[in-house]
Amino acid sequence: MGSWNWISLTTDYGQAEGFVAACRGVIARLAPQVQVMDVTHLIPPQDVRRGAEVLAQTVTWLPPAVHVAVVDPGVGTSRRGVCVSAGPATLVGPDNGLLPPAADALGGIESVHALEDPRFWLPSVSSTFHGRDIFAPVAAHLALGVDPAELGPLIPADDLVRLPPPRITVGPGRIEADVLTIDSFGNVQLAATRADLAVAGFDPGSPVSLRVRQSARRALLGQTFGDVGFGELVVYVDSAERVAIAMNGGSASATFRVREGDRVVLARTR
Amino acid sequence: MGSWNWISLTTDYGQAEGFVAACRGVIARLAPQVQVMDVTHLIPPQDVRRGAEVLAQTVTWLPPAVHVAVVDPGVGTSRRGVCVSAGPATLVGPDNGLLPPAADALGGIESVHALEDPRFWLPSVSSTFHGRDIFAPVAAHLALGVDPAELGPLIPADDLVRLPPPRITVGPGRIEADVLTIDSFGNVQLAATRADLAVAGFDPGSPVSLRVRQSARRALLGQTFGDVGFGELVVYVDSAERVAIAMNGGSASATFRVREGDRVVLARTR
Amino acid sequence: MGSWNWISLTTDYGQAEGFVAACRGVIARLAPQVQVMDVTHLIPPQDVRRGAEVLAQTVTWLPPAVHVAVVDPGVGTSRRGVCVSAGPATLVGPDNGLLPPAADALGGIESVHALEDPRFWLPSVSSTFHGRDIFAPVAAHLALGVDPAELGPLIPADDLVRLPPPRITVGPGRIEADVLTIDSFGNVQLAATRADLAVAGFDPGSPVSLRVRQSARRALLGQTFGDVGFGELVVYVDSAERVAIAMNGGSASATFRVREGDRVVLARTR
Repeated sequence: MGSWNWISLTTDYGQAEGFVAACRGVIARLAPQVQVMDVTHLIPPQDVRRGAEVLAQTVTWLPPAVHVAVVDPGVGTSRRGVCVSAGPATLVGPDNGLLPPAADALGGIESVHALEDPRFWLPSVSSTFHGRDIFAPVAAHLALGVDPAELGPLIPADDLVRLPPPRITVGPGRIEADVLTIDSFGNVQLAATRADLAVAGFDPGSPVSLRVRQSARRALLGQTFGDVGFGELVVYVDSAERVAIAMNGGSASATFRVREGDRVVLARTR
Repeated sequence: MGSWNWISLTTDYGQAEGFVAACRGVIARLAPQVQVMDVTHLIPPQDVRRGAEVLAQTVTWLPPAVHVAVVDPGVGTSRRGVCVSAGPATLVGPDNGLLPPAADALGGIESVHALEDPRFWLPSVSSTFHGRDIFAPVAAHLALGVDPAELGPLIPADDLVRLPPPRITVGPGRIEADVLTIDSFGNVQLAATRADLAVAGFDPGSPVSLRVRQSARRALLGQTFGDVGFGELVVYVDSAERVAIAMNGGSASATFRVREGDRVVLARTR
Repeated sequence: MGSWNWISLTTDYGQAEGFVAACRGVIARLAPQVQVMDVTHLIPPQDVRRGAEVLAQTVTWLPPAVHVAVVDPGVGTSRRGVCVSAGPATLVGPDNGLLPPAADALGGIESVHALEDPRFWLPSVSSTFHGRDIFAPVAAHLALGVDPAELGPLIPADDLVRLPPPRITVGPGRIEADVLTIDSFGNVQLAATRADLAVAGFDPGSPVSLRVRQSARRALLGQTFGDVGFGELVVYVDSAERVAIAMNGGSASATFRVREGDRVVLARTR
């Protein structure tokens, strides 16, 4: 319950129009003392999986907040809007798989409420901009101390839509894992974690082979970009504790032509 | 005149340099208590019409504020800077057509003053960056309670430069209208409104034909993206109460190769 | 030492992930009263020279602040992190040339401290994200009033890594200068200054010839874009007091195919 000083925003609205400002304006009018922080508005249009991943990897670093996330291809249809309480935060957005990974990262889902009571929405709700008309005002009301139970009926946590989890296969000297994200440096983040590296028996500083989309390359298991020569590949544990591939002074994703959702095989070499 | 807690910024400065930060810095030094909200800084360079449209569609959602808008190909020439009072807001920027649509959306122009008194500018004014040197400090002074009449002489509202209005032709079963904006999802917003649809006698849920740039397509008159199948076109009233065209799961603008300023014909089909 | 109300951020993190939000979150948790201002997060990946230039041209317009800058190809290696006191500000970032030009612009380096005391970092420090794990928390502590001397040992200012200065050659009627930056309008900023124009004896309003990458063009020495006809080139002193080249209604950089680091020759013509 209580109230929050912060609201965060994660959307695919882009930054070239006034969509984000409209959401911020709605919040500023309802809850002028609340501070608003952008996570990003450059989730690729309607890419729910990517939005879920960026949100989950970021929320743990933010102050206690109401996190609004809107990547919402089903806006205006029968898909539900939900409020998910999790640890020191509340998540607000569509029930399409976007929120559960962040809730898990925050310590697990405590309760879920459907957004059904229009008292907490704008008086007039459009069919295509629920970020402005429903999610932003709901977040403002939550930040002001409204109890999630007032927003609508309790829903079993198991009823939330969840995306299929990324695939990771670990064996002796071998890891096969989906690409989770590729950042603006071209660093390729895999679903595998630091623990998977240990289970597979990879040794720090040792050479590994990489295979993705037919092409194979050699890399070094290191800690940071500067551990390999300019233009060489390093496999490391990134700042989200995921196994990642980077090129020192270049873009690993461009070199490999790798895309999100691709599968990468790491193998120990001698 | 009172004072304002908020200043909004709408520019074509981009986000890759420090231009926006310089404007924010000028405001923070003069009026440290005032909060600054970005509308967008990605108006295409010198596209006054687009800047005017985004501003007009956004300001009504913002709290009472001084709205600074700078898309200013004539910076440093004899074009005037102006302060436009309109409803719960004051608009500041160049007199080149950028501000009047927003003033109209806010309830109409109440008064216009030319920016002539350098007491409210930075001590040294560059020839090419009036956003930092004139408009930002003027906005800060307004937010602190300076009366617009102190900024310079009163100008008749009719003297303001206005852009030609977009064209809309409505007949029985037919609407012809300019494209106003295209957003990052590829949704195509027309100048026609919900009222035009009613006047033309379009029925909700009925099929319509679309024509733009030689190509013709079929669409459904719906309410949201999910009202049509994946890859199909929907004509709907968007969150700014304009008639718009979207493709469910895709980009209507890319499919049609439509650009801002193009003209679209909607016709009832049976 | 006092404390600061503002922290500014300049990085090459991009805006599509949650990296900037993670840094802001770390600051918000440690120093919730401090305001954070973005300079830009679109420095091209690992382009230290560009980051240094944007920062130096922006900081003088900002309120007294802790300026965090992170363009850091050597993250996680033996390159030092530093805190540089300069005028009304403190700069925090890697010791790779990024900070000294801003310190110079702020009035010169007063003292430099290495970042060595982990009490002011996050409890766990990754190898690849020192912006979040070291620089952001150090900035938050500085803003709260921590004395730079507590962060680590004093370093001689002359020990800081400095980038090679841009080249400028001035003679009678002739200036040869490196391109410093190109903005989103395509305006080409040279390293030469207003003073160099005077030394070379260029007269306001007079024609000049431009040469870059084999191609030569005529331009006019003016004050702003509107001083020349549509599609014509103007040489002017920009808002950072640097000599710059613009095309009225177009992009000078696209026309010339000019890039940062190119060299331009301006010559007086009769």
